[in-house]
Amino acid sequence: MAVYTEVSNEDLERFVAEYDIGEITSIKGIAEGVENSNYLMQTRTDRFILTIYEKRVKPKDLPFFLGLMDHLAVAGIPCPTPIHGKDGQALRQLSGKPAAIVSFLDGVWPKGRTPNHCAALGEAVAQMHVAGSGFETRRPNDLRVTAWRPLFDSCRNRAEEVMPGLEAEIATELDALEGMWPTDLPEGVIHADLFPDNVFFLGGKLSGIIDFYFACNDWFAYEIAICLNAWCFEPDHQFNITKAKHLLSAYRRVRPFSQAELAVLPLLARGAAMRFLLTRLYDWLNRVDGALVRPKDPLEYLNKLKFHQSVIGPGAYGLD
Amino acid sequence: MAVYTEVSNEDLERFVAEYDIGEITSIKGIAEGVENSNYLMQTRTDRFILTIYEKRVKPKDLPFFLGLMDHLAVAGIPCPTPIHGKDGQALRQLSGKPAAIVSFLDGVWPKGRTPNHCAALGEAVAQMHVAGSGFETRRPNDLRVTAWRPLFDSCRNRAEEVMPGLEAEIATELDALEGMWPTDLPEGVIHADLFPDNVFFLGGKLSGIIDFYFACNDWFAYEIAICLNAWCFEPDHQFNITKAKHLLSAYRRVRPFSQAELAVLPLLARGAAMRFLLTRLYDWLNRVDGALVRPKDPLEYLNKLKFHQSVIGPGAYGLD
Repeated sequence: MAVYTEVSNEDLERFVAEYDIGEITSIKGIAEGVENSNYLMQTRTDRFILTIYEKRVKPKDLPFFLGLMDHLAVAGIPCPTPIHGKDGQALRQLSGKPAAIVSFLDGVWPKGRTPNHCAALGEAVAQMHVAGSGFETRRPNDLRVTAWRPLFDSCRNRAEEVMPGLEAEIATELDALEGMWPTDLPEGVIHADLFPDNVFFLGGKLSGIIDFYFACNDWFAYEIAICLNAWCFEPDHQFNITKAKHLLSAYRRVRPFSQAELAVLPLLARGAAMRFLLTRLYDWLNRVDGALVRPKDPLEYLNKLKFHQSVIGPGAYGLD
Repeated sequence: MAVYTEVSNEDLERFVAEYDIGEITSIKGIAEGVENSNYLMQTRTDRFILTIYEKRVKPKDLPFFLGLMDHLAVAGIPCPTPIHGKDGQALRQLSGKPAAIVSFLDGVWPKGRTPNHCAALGEAVAQMHVAGSGFETRRPNDLRVTAWRPLFDSCRNRAEEVMPGLEAEIATELDALEGMWPTDLPEGVIHADLFPDNVFFLGGKLSGIIDFYFACNDWFAYEIAICLNAWCFEPDHQFNITKAKHLLSAYRRVRPFSQAELAVLPLLARGAAMRFLLTRLYDWLNRVDGALVRPKDPLEYLNKLKFHQSVIGPGAYGLD
């Protein structure tokens, strides 16, 4: 949740004049997206999201993200559509930073998750995976297995501040993951950050998937592993197998899993837990005094990691 | 800018069902208002602001604030109108805290201020002062002159952390203000926090005044003193007499100043600077690690205070 860049009215008016979207009637900084500054912008004709890309997003990746949203929106995936200016460009500068306007999506993200939410998510994710197949631009996952050790090394000496024994736990698991990590699985474009606050529902139906700024080429099953972690644990940290089963079954009705994908799902779920444990640990130890972002608890992901370590096979997720 | 309370979808649906405003189609936490959690809420029929009142607002004051907005809106002042539920109540509970829904106002707050903005402000403030005359409920100003010393005492021993010499400067000025503070001036309902981010413009015209949660009964001229500080200094800290003249002239065309008000304006401007210097100093020294609010620089108000100390008479503000 963030608004990092304050924009002058003059800069804003100049920026919006490059588009054919009418006069701005209101603009509010919104508490959404930890990586960028986001504004809900109303014009005489419609509502939009204006995003100013902050330092965590590399400018060279922006054509991938915006192109992907264009591609998916055309394919019928309910994602934000980049608005192109009068010059055809979707990406330009505002207050000295890269910025873009995308369509506004109705809906509310689910603060309590039901099995039905999880089923709707599974179906939409599979549709997105299928729809991404024609998108030609590629972007490797910056946070894939090879990135975890450097991230750990950058903060391991302070891991004990968060919890005694944490450094050793991560070190052991990282060795294991690096040793066992699969090398070849069905891959394509994944969202890679499908947390509940990035998925909107309206009248019980999934109405939007937002925030594609971690999207990349990676294994489809790794996306599912991220979703299992983000959607199928209860507030008391218990894994909810009913939610997992709904998510996975709905996914497989649209895009069936291969046997290889099925077999490694517990391992991928451990890896996905490691990825968020490490980034949260880093953010926790490097939080900026006075920042607008409240860092998330890394230990939530240690708990998830331990659950998946205890799993014998994909049956633990309700799969057969 | 703040969203302190996360509301579950179920709580929200129950809350909104008490009103006749249709189904929610989107809700976004917005970065507006440092005292409360604010959400921009879209329903099938209209847009609204949902406010959850956090600890700084006393529940006993809420009927005053909401009643005042009702009163001013009826009188044609462009302020948020509290939405009354099916039971007639504008104030109820959400997630265990007091909450209310008010109408949404179009417009954008001016990040660069022109003399025309200041003139529009002056006119609107005078209209608001006149319109408030029929509002019977009273609320004393919690941050009037008698509140400054206890506030100072609560943080004076750490004032030097902000600037060497600050404690002595404030102590001397506080003695002076307490000794010279007027006792009787024309009074009524004032907003008491008319900073630019609480005033919206649309198409060059003032379209809204928001955030009445400091409103109280106090001297009209003290409100003007707050506005002079908030609107008439440039980013380089210079006082802009043209803006002040526009503000004051426009105000006086609607509600003339008495000679007594004119004479004490420099003193009130010093007092208004002291009030914000002290609350900012307190917030600066008591900021919460990880909070979503970025504390404002107290020394900006020391600079304003010094300017008004140097003023010989109201002529310094462009008045004759």
